[in-house]
Amino acid sequence: MKIDAADFASRIETYQQRVDASLERWLPGAEVHPQRLHRAMRYAVLAPGKRVRPILVYATAATLDVDLARVDGAAAAAEIIHAYSLIHDDLPAMDDDDLRRGRPTCHREFDEATAILAGDALQALAFYILSHDPAMTGSARARLQMIEKLALFSGSRGMAGGQAIDLAAVGRTLNVAELETMHIHKTGALIRTCVQLAALSAPRLGKKRFRALDSYAKCIGLSFQVMDDILDVVGNTATLGKTQGADSARDKPTYPSIIGLDASWEKARELHNGALQALSIFGEEADVLRYISAWFVERKS
Amino acid sequence: MKIDAADFASRIETYQQRVDASLERWLPGAEVHPQRLHRAMRYAVLAPGKRVRPILVYATAATLDVDLARVDGAAAAAEIIHAYSLIHDDLPAMDDDDLRRGRPTCHREFDEATAILAGDALQALAFYILSHDPAMTGSARARLQMIEKLALFSGSRGMAGGQAIDLAAVGRTLNVAELETMHIHKTGALIRTCVQLAALSAPRLGKKRFRALDSYAKCIGLSFQVMDDILDVVGNTATLGKTQGADSARDKPTYPSIIGLDASWEKARELHNGALQALSIFGEEADVLRYISAWFVERKS
Repeated sequence: MKIDAADFASRIETYQQRVDASLERWLPGAEVHPQRLHRAMRYAVLAPGKRVRPILVYATAATLDVDLARVDGAAAAAEIIHAYSLIHDDLPAMDDDDLRRGRPTCHREFDEATAILAGDALQALAFYILSHDPAMTGSARARLQMIEKLALFSGSRGMAGGQAIDLAAVGRTLNVAELETMHIHKTGALIRTCVQLAALSAPRLGKKRFRALDSYAKCIGLSFQVMDDILDVVGNTATLGKTQGADSARDKPTYPSIIGLDASWEKARELHNGALQALSIFGEEADVLRYISAWFVERKS
Repeated sequence: MKIDAADFASRIETYQQRVDASLERWLPGAEVHPQRLHRAMRYAVLAPGKRVRPILVYATAATLDVDLARVDGAAAAAEIIHAYSLIHDDLPAMDDDDLRRGRPTCHREFDEATAILAGDALQALAFYILSHDPAMTGSARARLQMIEKLALFSGSRGMAGGQAIDLAAVGRTLNVAELETMHIHKTGALIRTCVQLAALSAPRLGKKRFRALDSYAKCIGLSFQVMDDILDVVGNTATLGKTQGADSARDKPTYPSIIGLDASWEKARELHNGALQALSIFGEEADVLRYISAWFVERKS
C-alpha cells in the first residue's frame, strides 16, 4: 500500500494520539501522592510536542506488520526517557534553559529538586513499563533485550555520556568527527533505540532486515540533530518553542558553526539519501519510514 | 549450620569483597570515554561503605541456598541504585551536603552537572545489569520480575517519591505515621527490594517464605532508618563520615525529634523483634539474616 502525503500526515496524527493515550495510562495521576512530583512528571511528559520517538516506534512496527497495541508500552517508554533527558538537560547546572516547547522548563515551573526527582522517577518508569506492560505479548527474552537496549543507550556510553561530552564541549573547538560522536550518543542513540524496540517486537525478523532498519535509524538520528542545529540558526523562537540561537549564544559547537550553513543543509540531504538507501530492501510497507526521513530534513521546527 | 558472631563478621566481609569485585566488573573503567563521567560514577560507587544492600542480597540468597554467583548482578545493581540516589540526594538543590562517607560528595569532587549525569547513568547501568548479566541463570520471566521490582521501588512511588516527601517535610511538623511513610519509601523500599531480588532468584520459593522474607525486610528497612536518625543525634562526624546533626540542623523531621531519643531506641528494638518473628518459619539457615537485623540496631555508624 503506497501512501501519499495526506496519508502520512494522518498516520502521524494517529500515532501522536495513540502515544498520548498510552502515556496517560502509565503516568501516575496528578492527585496521587506525592502530588507535586507527579504533577511535574506529567507537566514534562504531556507537554505539547512532536512525539518523534514514539512515531518511529509505531512506524517501524507498522512496517513490520506488528500490531500497534504490542508497542504502545515501548512508544511510551521512549517518550518518557526523552522527556526525562530534557528535564535534566535544562537544569541550571546543565544547559540552564528557561523555555522548552514554548513553556517554562520543569525546574522553572516547579523547582530544581522536583525537576531532578521527576527526571529520576521517569527513567525508572520507562523500565517499569517495559518489564511490566501486559499488552507486550512477545517473549520474555525479547522484552529483556528491549530493556537492555534502552538501558545501554540511556547510560554513560549513550545519552548521559552524550550530554557529558556536550557540556565538556562548550567553548571548545570541535571537529566534525567529534561533533558527530557527541550527537550520535545524545540524540541519535534514542532514535536508534526506538527503531530497535519496535524491531524486537517482530517475531522472525531476521538479521538482514534488522540491520537495514538500524542503518536507517542511524542516518535519521543524525539528520534530526543536524536540522536542530540549522533551525537554531535560521528558525525563530515562536516556531521552535525554545530560545532561538540558544546553542550558538552559549558557544556550543553546532554543524553550522563548524562546517557552515550550506554544508549543513547538504549534510542533512546526504543523510536522508542514506536513510532511503538503507530501506531499499523493503517495499512500499516502509513508505511511512521514508516519509519520516523526509519530514526530518524538511521540518521548520 | 548455626553461625556465631565471628562467622557472621567473616560472612559480611566475604559479601563486601564479593560485591566490590562485581561492581568493578560492571563499572566502565576510568579510562573509558567520557572519562570524567566514568570517574565520577566510580568515585561514588566504589567509595568505602558498608555495602548493606548487597549484603542483604547475598544473605537472602544464602538462606535460600541459591548460588551466590547468580546474584552478583543483583547485588551490584542494588548498590549502584543506592549510590545514584546518594549522589542526587546530596546535590545543592536537594540536601546540599559536602561530605559523604568521609569524602567530598560527588558534586564537590567533580561538578554539579557531572554528578547529575553520573546518577542518571548509574540508574541506567543497574537496569542494564539485570537485563544483561549472563551469570543470572534464572528464567527470563524471573529476571523481568526483578527489573519490575527495582523500577517500581526506584520510581515516584518508591525512592524518588520518598525523597520528594522528605524535601517537602523540611521545616514542617510531621507525625510518626507521616515520618514512617517517608522512610518506607526512601530507605525501606530499596532494602525490601534487595531481599525480593534474591528471593526471585530462588526457584520454587513459595508464597509463604516469600512473604516471611518480605515482612522481615520491611522491619529492618525501617529499623535501619530509625538508627540513622538516632546516630545523627548521638554519633559523631568522624564515625559517621557525614556531618553529624546535619538532618536536625536542617530542621528535618527525625524519630528523635518527634518521639524523643528513648522512644526511638525502643522503636528500633521493637522492629528488630518483628524481624526475628517474621523469620520464625526458617531454621538456622536464616541465622545470617537474624544477625543482620541485630547489626542494624547495634551499629555505631
